[in-house]
Amino acid sequence: MSLGIQEIGVYIPEKRISNLELKEKFNIDDTFIEKKIGVKQRAVKEPTEKASDLCVKAFENLKQKVDINKDEIDCCIVVTQNPDTPIPHTSAIVHAKLGLKEDCACFDISLGCSGYVYGLAVALSFMEKMGLKKGLLFTADPYSEIIDPEDKNTVLLFGDAATVTLLSEEGTLALKKALFATEGKNFEALTIKNGRLYMNGRAVFNFVLTKVPNQIKRLLEESKLSLEDIDLFLLHPGSKYMVDMLAGRLKLPKDKVPFDMLGYGNTVSSSIPIMLEKFLPKKDIKRILISGYGVGLSWASAILERV
Amino acid sequence: MSLGIQEIGVYIPEKRISNLELKEKFNIDDTFIEKKIGVKQRAVKEPTEKASDLCVKAFENLKQKVDINKDEIDCCIVVTQNPDTPIPHTSAIVHAKLGLKEDCACFDISLGCSGYVYGLAVALSFMEKMGLKKGLLFTADPYSEIIDPEDKNTVLLFGDAATVTLLSEEGTLALKKALFATEGKNFEALTIKNGRLYMNGRAVFNFVLTKVPNQIKRLLEESKLSLEDIDLFLLHPGSKYMVDMLAGRLKLPKDKVPFDMLGYGNTVSSSIPIMLEKFLPKKDIKRILISGYGVGLSWASAILERV
Repeated sequence: MSLGIQEIGVYIPEKRISNLELKEKFNIDDTFIEKKIGVKQRAVKEPTEKASDLCVKAFENLKQKVDINKDEIDCCIVVTQNPDTPIPHTSAIVHAKLGLKEDCACFDISLGCSGYVYGLAVALSFMEKMGLKKGLLFTADPYSEIIDPEDKNTVLLFGDAATVTLLSEEGTLALKKALFATEGKNFEALTIKNGRLYMNGRAVFNFVLTKVPNQIKRLLEESKLSLEDIDLFLLHPGSKYMVDMLAGRLKLPKDKVPFDMLGYGNTVSSSIPIMLEKFLPKKDIKRILISGYGVGLSWASAILERV
Repeated sequence: MSLGIQEIGVYIPEKRISNLELKEKFNIDDTFIEKKIGVKQRAVKEPTEKASDLCVKAFENLKQKVDINKDEIDCCIVVTQNPDTPIPHTSAIVHAKLGLKEDCACFDISLGCSGYVYGLAVALSFMEKMGLKKGLLFTADPYSEIIDPEDKNTVLLFGDAATVTLLSEEGTLALKKALFATEGKNFEALTIKNGRLYMNGRAVFNFVLTKVPNQIKRLLEESKLSLEDIDLFLLHPGSKYMVDMLAGRLKLPKDKVPFDMLGYGNTVSSSIPIMLEKFLPKKDIKRILISGYGVGLSWASAILERV
């Protein structure tokens, strides 16, 4: 038996802010909102809610789908760049709020939109090597805490959410090959300035279109797979236009590239697991390619295979 | 060939602040400073220096000891809870400053004093599973950025430093079994309040003395080793008194438990690699037990074995 993804819990806050109401303010139209950005409404958490609270709610969703004995959880990892506080790590606070057992490894991974691909690889490698049987991999990056409501480049795009992936020996999806890359020299295209998110949208877009298709091609090549061998491509929705352009460059059939953030926004490291959750029960989906890219600048792609 | 620790680079800022000058202010004496805390002088970085700058300096030290082809570095991980900025991860900034290659996995791990034990386990597991050959594991947690100079509980204790551990197939120390534990419910004993570090020293001390000896005993037991099989115990120097008490509880011979922060302070996740570096060339040291504990609350112990 080898470790893999058993189930995914998702939490998207109910509260929504509509981009349609901002058309006049930012001089944009429906086409821009639907075809270019791909976000009509953004999910926003309550101001008092912290990353750890979103994680707890994702866990509650997970519990509705699968029986979990908390005393079996050996490992609790949170991927975030908006932690509750810098000290301690948010995973320790989640550990407290969920009442997990003492023999449980907890740490946070700081990464943005490539965070789920990394998180899966780090969590599964760590668990396997350290002999841990059951783990929780959370993603929670509430960008509403750092978005400047006057910044057209970012305010229309990001939504709050959290996910938790149950990793165990009863996994239905195994992680196969993964590739990771970094272009630190351009990190300033996506960073925090004076406590607010700053994004050079054009620079990020160009970076993604230049780098990601090559990584995906190389991943397939090194895995001795062709595009046809992949049943589903879960590409991080940087924007609708970005996903469309990526799919076009790679000549992917549209029905293999779901796009799913129109009603809640770009949820950073939660975007891929939110999409993945819907395909977990579909047994005809044998092989999934996931790819995340953004903050760092960082990009990572991996192949998941049904056990 | 299996992955392990090849070499360690260390940076401790030259600038020192003396605790001896604070005797009157805090109503303490030499005995308290030397026997209880174990810190006479604290290393302090320049205010303009960031965590990534300390990492770069640790890398410069590493380069003096071992030839490094930067294009061979597949992986760059930074353990910190005082990153340059929350977005992006500090490892991306280090990637930029060192001019590392594009095919390089970068992420940060958020952990405190248990961070080196976790960092080694995460980095080596990730590298092995992902087929990466050469990695840099940095620790850099400049607490001078968050210390309240009026807080006797913390200001006398912490020093700034950074380390980098070169992980490769030419490693001389391999990671054997490791154990990890968390007591999230008491995380508030060591946290940030209003931008400043807060520590309930007594609670942390009691936690360490209660939990760590048992973990070390269990680690030995599960590794089928006795205390005599271990040539060196590198216990995180929470304070001189803490290390003395731990060694006493475990009945460890004093010459197997180095204490090394009198001249620079408790450097959080850098404390263990700073000590370890000195013993790397000593081939008669076959087996080393490392143990870190603190923020989280979190504790982790591992056995390193000479290849």
